[in-house]
Amino acid sequence: MTVSKNITWHSATVTRADREKMNSHKSAILWFTGLSGAGKSSVAHAVEDRLFKLGCRTYVLDGDNIRHGLCKDLGFSDADRTENIRRIGEVSKLFTDSGVMALTAFISPFRSDRDAVRELVDDGDFIEIYCKCDLSVCEERDVKGLYKKARAGEIPEFTGINSPYEEPLKSEITVDTAAQSIDESVEQIINALADRNIISIN
Amino acid sequence: MTVSKNITWHSATVTRADREKMNSHKSAILWFTGLSGAGKSSVAHAVEDRLFKLGCRTYVLDGDNIRHGLCKDLGFSDADRTENIRRIGEVSKLFTDSGVMALTAFISPFRSDRDAVRELVDDGDFIEIYCKCDLSVCEERDVKGLYKKARAGEIPEFTGINSPYEEPLKSEITVDTAAQSIDESVEQIINALADRNIISIN
Repeated sequence: MTVSKNITWHSATVTRADREKMNSHKSAILWFTGLSGAGKSSVAHAVEDRLFKLGCRTYVLDGDNIRHGLCKDLGFSDADRTENIRRIGEVSKLFTDSGVMALTAFISPFRSDRDAVRELVDDGDFIEIYCKCDLSVCEERDVKGLYKKARAGEIPEFTGINSPYEEPLKSEITVDTAAQSIDESVEQIINALADRNIISIN
Repeated sequence: MTVSKNITWHSATVTRADREKMNSHKSAILWFTGLSGAGKSSVAHAVEDRLFKLGCRTYVLDGDNIRHGLCKDLGFSDADRTENIRRIGEVSKLFTDSGVMALTAFISPFRSDRDAVRELVDDGDFIEIYCKCDLSVCEERDVKGLYKKARAGEIPEFTGINSPYEEPLKSEITVDTAAQSIDESVEQIINALADRNIISIN
């Protein structure tokens, strides 16, 4: 009969393990967190650049490609920030399952939101990278002029000024972006990924 | 000074073109649409399996990994279906940008929702694949027993029974899943991707 002939309802399945084998590296979520101006996006893109040169499959999720797309319906209230991070976590999980390393660069100020993403995935798949940089240094940089606006009361919920940032208690990697150059932070992260057998640099 | 030394605010950027070159194929969204039981997911996974054997980077988005994750807050009202498809479109766009072919397997019954995804991406990046199969055949298969439930009034908005399905008017590929085997549909799709220079099968 037509029915039984045409559809075998057992899907062919390419697994994450298959993809990792093809890629010659493991996948994971590299979750960059820290204050605005701490260098999350710059370091994430620099790490991606290095990983690309090592032949790795990667993708950076940041405000540029998320806030105007997937999360364009969300604002900056606590509830919307939580939903924003939840969606980014779910998308990162999909990338990881596809064999691609997902690098996320968002302030992600709330510990509970970050831990919720950690809980979404298997042990070892969530690598929290804390871009540690004093508020005073971030504010001095003020690359986007946002701190000045926040101090002037023009931004109602700006992390570090009038909205809290909760430091990671157990980040897998902490990079001191106040004292280190971007290259030094990249080196530190690449070595940590090699130590965890996610990539091979030999 | 610390500020100028440590942060060069020009991000290193790995481009989609870089990724496509590394992968030796182009990326695109392969958007499977059709009634429940038309074989979207089976064909999508079978196409992925073939693409994987050709060395391509792919990922299938379907109910299994989306409805319990990214879109678990959404139901099946018209508004929620639209938001569901919007998010899947945005995620597919991210995968495409990452160099990975995104294969999506959702009924996606509304033409306007599918066209909105088409508008999200560049010309040629959205390949609509219509799994064409008469309602009577889908209902006869009724693999998940959903048509029976819908006919019994147990599912309030079931596409084809008490919620409309709008056929594509300009699908890039139409596979006749009522008459063809899965393998035949896969063959047709792989050839169409080669014709569009997305993959090379020589």
